Amino acid sequence: MSIELKNANTFPATSINEGEGDFYRQLVESGLSLLSIENNLQKLLQEVVALALTVTKADAGSLYVIQGKEIEFTVARNLTLEERRIPMSLEHFRLPINNNTICGYVAGTGESLFIDDANNLDAHLPFRFNRSFDIKFNYTSQSMLALPLTNAAGQVVGVLQLINHRLNGLFVPFPRYLLSPVRIMARKAGMALYNAILSDNLKKSQYETVYRLSIAAEARDKSTGMHVHRVSEYARILANAMGQPEEFQELIHAAAPLHDVGKIGITDSILQKPGSLTPEEREVMKTHTTLGFSMLNDSESPLLKLGASIALTHHEKWDGTGYPHGLQGESIPLEGRLIALADVFDALVSRRCYKAAMPIDQIKALITNEKGRHFDPVLTEKFLDSWDEINRTAEQMKD
Amino acid sequence: MSIELKNANTFPATSINEGEGDFYRQLVESGLSLLSIENNLQKLLQEVVALALTVTKADAGSLYVIQGKEIEFTVARNLTLEERRIPMSLEHFRLPINNNTICGYVAGTGESLFIDDANNLDAHLPFRFNRSFDIKFNYTSQSMLALPLTNAAGQVVGVLQLINHRLNGLFVPFPRYLLSPVRIMARKAGMALYNAILSDNLKKSQYETVYRLSIAAEARDKSTGMHVHRVSEYARILANAMGQPEEFQELIHAAAPLHDVGKIGITDSILQKPGSLTPEEREVMKTHTTLGFSMLNDSESPLLKLGASIALTHHEKWDGTGYPHGLQGESIPLEGRLIALADVFDALVSRRCYKAAMPIDQIKALITNEKGRHFDPVLTEKFLDSWDEINRTAEQMKD
Repeated sequence: MSIELKNANTFPATSINEGEGDFYRQLVESGLSLLSIENNLQKLLQEVVALALTVTKADAGSLYVIQGKEIEFTVARNLTLEERRIPMSLEHFRLPINNNTICGYVAGTGESLFIDDANNLDAHLPFRFNRSFDIKFNYTSQSMLALPLTNAAGQVVGVLQLINHRLNGLFVPFPRYLLSPVRIMARKAGMALYNAILSDNLKKSQYETVYRLSIAAEARDKSTGMHVHRVSEYARILANAMGQPEEFQELIHAAAPLHDVGKIGITDSILQKPGSLTPEEREVMKTHTTLGFSMLNDSESPLLKLGASIALTHHEKWDGTGYPHGLQGESIPLEGRLIALADVFDALVSRRCYKAAMPIDQIKALITNEKGRHFDPVLTEKFLDSWDEINRTAEQMKD
Repeated sequence: MSIELKNANTFPATSINEGEGDFYRQLVESGLSLLSIENNLQKLLQEVVALALTVTKADAGSLYVIQGKEIEFTVARNLTLEERRIPMSLEHFRLPINNNTICGYVAGTGESLFIDDANNLDAHLPFRFNRSFDIKFNYTSQSMLALPLTNAAGQVVGVLQLINHRLNGLFVPFPRYLLSPVRIMARKAGMALYNAILSDNLKKSQYETVYRLSIAAEARDKSTGMHVHRVSEYARILANAMGQPEEFQELIHAAAPLHDVGKIGITDSILQKPGSLTPEEREVMKTHTTLGFSMLNDSESPLLKLGASIALTHHEKWDGTGYPHGLQGESIPLEGRLIALADVFDALVSRRCYKAAMPIDQIKALITNEKGRHFDPVLTEKFLDSWDEINRTAEQMKD
């Protein structure tokens, strides 16, 4: 399992030794309870590295996450560079899982690795130390401790690389008694990481449904383009202005592109008609609301359910004169009232194939005039309060 | 935290006591390593209940999984009924998380609960025992041990209810020293369960993208209907006959409905034209392959990537006369060769709006004749070997 390493010690992933390092162990335990409740992947990664630096008295640390047959560099800290106020902006590069690199070796073998001097690695070792970071930032990596983060099934889900153990202002080798406490940390952090990765994938996967449906809708109606993305942004700004929780802001931002998804089912002769529609054609066009609703509403995903509600109600009007159901006031769900306003604003502000954009003062007057008629009056106020931010967004995201 | 329970003891979720129950503890540890690698939710639930029955010497057990503000009954075992060969088919009912039921109480409080006689619960207890199972199956539940399964963050993710501790052929109360070992089990099982739930949700969510896109495509082309689902089934049968691993069989079954997704972007006048297409129209129709590919291929999901490949290559022919790229032989990916055959077969066997179904012998002759021309010769052989199964499927799933 373990190869012979001169000037570097590996420790196969066996049970944790009792004994030394009790102080560190307590430190680990107190930090761990925080980790396990963090489901936001990016925050979790940062917390794991921060905790690891404290526990191991390392000057620097990086975290890699397994992505198929590679490991992806995610977050890094470097206390020396932070003290010197040198910003590190690092690309999310990937390394193959093999013995050529230190972290690739740890990911592949599941072993923990102590290295006393990275720049004097014995020639027979399979891996070499990559000095590109040190050169770029004028830093000297010397001692290292690299260890695998594993999930409950013992699978490696990440690699934590710690650099330069600090003792009385000097960089010295990492003491071997750290192995036991960092392993406890690595196991718990690995489980938390695994959960956060799964949660993150789940979220991405739900967003993907929206994204693919939007692409499908665009394949039919090229005029859409950036429209759905702008409406998403206005929706988030408005939800925020309404004091809605961050979760709802994020959800409505993600679901907004679905408002016209029902148009996929509208025949070309109506959907792409250059002139104005006949009354009969207009009735067919109106069915994009109920059609969109029926395409999404049987989903168990809160995101798609919100999308269904938006699709159904974004043409209702506050005074009850909208469609498809002529709902009035607060019987129109908030998401519908919100997208109604965002959608109309974007149609006015952007140039569509069938009409030119309207001057901005005229748009403001029109929206103000529709307060309590087409639009929710409170929402209209918030919209006008956010006028500058919304217009900046419209400008930045124009077709 | 804990209410006063006469004839029932609760134990708040604190740290695990050392001491008694060491034999059970060893038993738990040996069973647990198996649990943590099981990512299939249904199998995992069954293994947790089976392990719990062994560890606690319970006659029966049920597992509930948290679903929002409810708990959902999932799996149950009952050794007495199994010995009497009485089948239990139980609905997946749900209970609200509140103090009215035993498992709802455990889910809400996170406490473990020992009950010595479920039919003699003290009147002041908030919950009542629901006798409907006992009445239906002529069984007598007496002693109980109900405990929460928690994830790494300590959140309750499930409730395990164990019934009737067996001692020398009698049903007696569960000994209190079981608390420590079952808690270890509940913690580890809870973490494994949480991961399995997340994995399961992720899979469902990826399938949902395919499903919603299929619905969108159907909104345009009503003739599709059951066609995509039949092609999925043939694809699974063929992948199995080709000796492909189960994972691929499942993936191609899930991705097959995407083969014509590019048709969403084909104009109605061509897509829904009743007669045959002009050469120019046929060229436009052919772009549904590249269009479908570009709608899906930038996804990170292996499922959608497979769908992209299928969309692109399912009109290629083994002899190189297909489209869009005129690929030949094994340069056409397996999934494309496989769906080509499944798609053509289904078009022949089912009645489409523009032509009547072909007699079955004629279809068989046609496919045999296309071996090595339109279709991969090995695949054609496997198809003919699976002829009966494929035709049964076609019959069962007809429009």
